[in-house]
Amino acid sequence: MTRVLGVDPGTRHCGWGVVERDGSRLVHVDNGVLVLPETLRLEQRLAALLERLDAVIGQYRPETAAVEGVFQHRNARSALVLGHARGVALAALARRGVAIAEYTPQQVKKAVCGSGRAAKEQIQLMVALRLGLPEVAQVDASDAVAVALCHAQHLALGASPLPRPKRGGGGDKALLALVRRQGFEP
Amino acid sequence: MTRVLGVDPGTRHCGWGVVERDGSRLVHVDNGVLVLPETLRLEQRLAALLERLDAVIGQYRPETAAVEGVFQHRNARSALVLGHARGVALAALARRGVAIAEYTPQQVKKAVCGSGRAAKEQIQLMVALRLGLPEVAQVDASDAVAVALCHAQHLALGASPLPRPKRGGGGDKALLALVRRQGFEP
Repeated sequence: MTRVLGVDPGTRHCGWGVVERDGSRLVHVDNGVLVLPETLRLEQRLAALLERLDAVIGQYRPETAAVEGVFQHRNARSALVLGHARGVALAALARRGVAIAEYTPQQVKKAVCGSGRAAKEQIQLMVALRLGLPEVAQVDASDAVAVALCHAQHLALGASPLPRPKRGGGGDKALLALVRRQGFEP
Repeated sequence: MTRVLGVDPGTRHCGWGVVERDGSRLVHVDNGVLVLPETLRLEQRLAALLERLDAVIGQYRPETAAVEGVFQHRNARSALVLGHARGVALAALARRGVAIAEYTPQQVKKAVCGSGRAAKEQIQLMVALRLGLPEVAQVDASDAVAVALCHAQHLALGASPLPRPKRGGGGDKALLALVRRQGFEP
């Protein structure tokens, strides 16, 4: 049994999700969003992120963690700010001895939705669907669960990879069923 | 008496310098460079940075700290990487309750050398000269002492600001004397 923590770092919200691989089964353990109040200064938010992510790591004791690698940046300013949160998250994991894997956004989308070009809402729904969540998780938490799912799936490859939704077939139907249960309009 | 820690964060080298303001006097306490081995992965270097900077803060217990703000980026990739180290440094300071001030590179240069366009070597020499260091500090440490000096000087403003080198006059002469003592060619 391997426990994987997915992290989606940010300076305002940091999503996290814990997935367990038990043989061929992937089981959702928990997920959440660390909200870092906008009234705090950047350095105070970063200190809070360090402390609160450390508490999550301490509570769930994952063997391994996954974050999205950053390969494209719209501009240097946003890359710098994202870097601050990402640095704190990586340091929090590494000092607890948690191994970190990185995946491209495309790898995560492909692993979760079967397509590297899936939309954000589709990831939210597929994460909920594939892990049998009772409801769709918040966006940041969903992204974190998605990267954990991607990593758990890669770890399982060669053993028993997760069944992937069929192209344009069953996956879409199941997705629509979930959309209806959630009362969403797709 | 106020103790100021200057930090120059990086993912390979993190410079630090401690300056004390005692009335109108500015006294150098210590400086150094945390070298983060290139053989380590980024997250391990960040965890080491967190631990070792925390040790410096614990040892010198500064009331306040200063870092250079980042306002210009050559490219998004380098901004992201710098952001990682900067985020860890800010979190390390904030969680110890150390207040953080930011200065532009131009403010630091102006405070230390009297000109916002001073070259790196000039900063190294002026830092050594103004604080009476026995030798010129390493570049990263010098930069950290320079931002500490800048902050200490701003704190002292209104009270007894440090004498500034005269434009094109005594400052240059004293600088040349130091250059000669160091065996440098300017």
